[in-house]
Amino acid sequence: MSAGESLARIRERKPLVHQITNYVVMNETANATLAIGALPVMAHAPEEVEEMVGLAGALVLNIGTLSSSWIDAMLLAGRAANAAGVPVVLDPVGAGATRYRTDTAKRIIDEVDVAVLRGNAGEIATLAGVDAEVRGVESIGAAGTAAEVARAAASTLGVVAAVTGSVDHVSDGSRVVAVENGHPLLASITGTGCMSTAITGAFLAARSEQPLEAAAEALAAFGVAGENAAPGAKGPGSFHVNLYDALAALDPAQLDERARFA
Amino acid sequence: MSAGESLARIRERKPLVHQITNYVVMNETANATLAIGALPVMAHAPEEVEEMVGLAGALVLNIGTLSSSWIDAMLLAGRAANAAGVPVVLDPVGAGATRYRTDTAKRIIDEVDVAVLRGNAGEIATLAGVDAEVRGVESIGAAGTAAEVARAAASTLGVVAAVTGSVDHVSDGSRVVAVENGHPLLASITGTGCMSTAITGAFLAARSEQPLEAAAEALAAFGVAGENAAPGAKGPGSFHVNLYDALAALDPAQLDERARFA
Amino acid sequence: MSAGESLARIRERKPLVHQITNYVVMNETANATLAIGALPVMAHAPEEVEEMVGLAGALVLNIGTLSSSWIDAMLLAGRAANAAGVPVVLDPVGAGATRYRTDTAKRIIDEVDVAVLRGNAGEIATLAGVDAEVRGVESIGAAGTAAEVARAAASTLGVVAAVTGSVDHVSDGSRVVAVENGHPLLASITGTGCMSTAITGAFLAARSEQPLEAAAEALAAFGVAGENAAPGAKGPGSFHVNLYDALAALDPAQLDERARFA
Repeated sequence: MSAGESLARIRERKPLVHQITNYVVMNETANATLAIGALPVMAHAPEEVEEMVGLAGALVLNIGTLSSSWIDAMLLAGRAANAAGVPVVLDPVGAGATRYRTDTAKRIIDEVDVAVLRGNAGEIATLAGVDAEVRGVESIGAAGTAAEVARAAASTLGVVAAVTGSVDHVSDGSRVVAVENGHPLLASITGTGCMSTAITGAFLAARSEQPLEAAAEALAAFGVAGENAAPGAKGPGSFHVNLYDALAALDPAQLDERARFA
Repeated sequence: MSAGESLARIRERKPLVHQITNYVVMNETANATLAIGALPVMAHAPEEVEEMVGLAGALVLNIGTLSSSWIDAMLLAGRAANAAGVPVVLDPVGAGATRYRTDTAKRIIDEVDVAVLRGNAGEIATLAGVDAEVRGVESIGAAGTAAEVARAAASTLGVVAAVTGSVDHVSDGSRVVAVENGHPLLASITGTGCMSTAITGAFLAARSEQPLEAAAEALAAFGVAGENAAPGAKGPGSFHVNLYDALAALDPAQLDERARFA
Repeated sequence: MSAGESLARIRERKPLVHQITNYVVMNETANATLAIGALPVMAHAPEEVEEMVGLAGALVLNIGTLSSSWIDAMLLAGRAANAAGVPVVLDPVGAGATRYRTDTAKRIIDEVDVAVLRGNAGEIATLAGVDAEVRGVESIGAAGTAAEVARAAASTLGVVAAVTGSVDHVSDGSRVVAVENGHPLLASITGTGCMSTAITGAFLAARSEQPLEAAAEALAAFGVAGENAAPGAKGPGSFHVNLYDALAALDPAQLDERARFA
């Protein structure tokens, strides 16, 4: 595992990360993608998603503001990504909060070969069939430890599951990697989960053959950027600004030194 | 009236504020909702709005970037909110600018029991049938004083009307409360009106039985945050950043001391 | 050519700039429009676009996140703008990346009288039928010099073509004006191209009879703001914040002194 090596590869190759995501965070995930060194493109029309994903190094699907035509686009793009060998990341925002979101996330996992599923413990537990208490999209508590949720989801769903929280846990069903980077202020702004998913897409584009490593490295990179963004922040507004600066300033050597995998 | 007490209650209960709002400000209102201490969720699909609003402490409807499927979702969510006793805030962005916006705002008020109607003088005057000159969504001049517009709208429409401007006026048709907080820089960025509506939703979730108090307190809280954000701002960009910091740093005791109701 | 004079006129008249644009940048272009001194309004419903554009000083069309109903709205608004003598700016985001985007941009140019076409070299070259290598929306390389691309596009398409890059080139088919303002950090955040298009709309509203001058002046204004935003920026996040401050602080006299036309 070398997060720094993957980061250097992103900066060198500048992979296109095709994102079909929610309205709330589009600007945020585009800027996070640029700051880490990749190129974002948002496209959701059925007329173009298949063509667009063919140009991409990864596809990011995010169900944060769903509607039926967007689901169709996600399925279309997901299948085209699979056919072209482009890895897919899914962010099941709000799974467990409404049946529509739970069902849609399950349907995408059923119909598309998802490489990495990135969510919080409540969302992932819902999809894995583990009991969980879910409340909205920002505050989630889950029964069982996050590591167990990650492992169970990975086994059950046939994905790499990346469960983020104060410590992140990434599992392929057998191994579980904990990522101990991050900062509490990351929870003070909306869209940081979605940003971490977009960055997972960038790392997956650079290391598609090793989705567990790619997901863990992406979360370490995002977490270290969060740590670097905190000093000097006076609250969520200035932290948000610092976060983009920190993502862009992230150095491969520093990342390897600071990444805390366990 | 204790804005501080309501703020403390928001911070303690963290109510979910379900928002069906416009594309321009979704990220902004989500971050403002988080910063004040509540939890935002955006959902607009007819398949899920009724279920989502059942989890919420308040529903915010905002017509800033309308289309027909979104109107359907607003009506569906609004009726479900009424049935569940969840208070509804409406922001009639651009009412008076086009017939479509005026008619939609009126239709929502007709078909949904709206607790608080939050807009500028031109928008509210249009809906109350008071003569007004309306020009776009950022610059509005209204005939009659804002206090009279608020009182007339409240009486005519059966809502609490919150008319924002350099001084805000909130009325239930008999009482009129003036809120003398705020800062001119609030008019220099887009979405501050929409943010004040979202924050009204958070206060209404904490004090649903007193919508006039909730609306006035929310505007005082947002205004004091605006005042606190101004020092050190070099323009709209840095003011925007400071505003989130100031909302998050807002202290109940400070709010009570600084709130200027008349 | 006096960019300062046009800027002063924008600040005095505060024209409404009606924008039908992409989800990623709506907040950004609204805030850039406000910061330069004009008033933004976003509206895309077929029920209201014709009425709204009648209130506007310019119409901005941007195809960054297309879908079929939005194309219909753009065509409807564009024709109404033409009928009312309101100048139209088109930003063909991603033309060349997918056939859908290329075809849509061409269709708008065919069916609407576009005053200014603002894009990067790859996008404009595609529409002009000049050979170009296109990769995503953020990284574009074009065959032929940008000046030639601008001239060819203007001749072929019957528009003023504004090709932005490290040096911008604006042509009406005979004259070519180079604009040598700007800063590399403008490429580090998403939406700066779209912001320059929105600002072109504001300048066009102030100087509709001279679209080449309006486009060149707008790019000079945006470029000088970018130069002023760079000192003190620690990366894309803080540069983004500074950019709004710099747009709002831009002074007509300073703009005339600093604008570099060639």
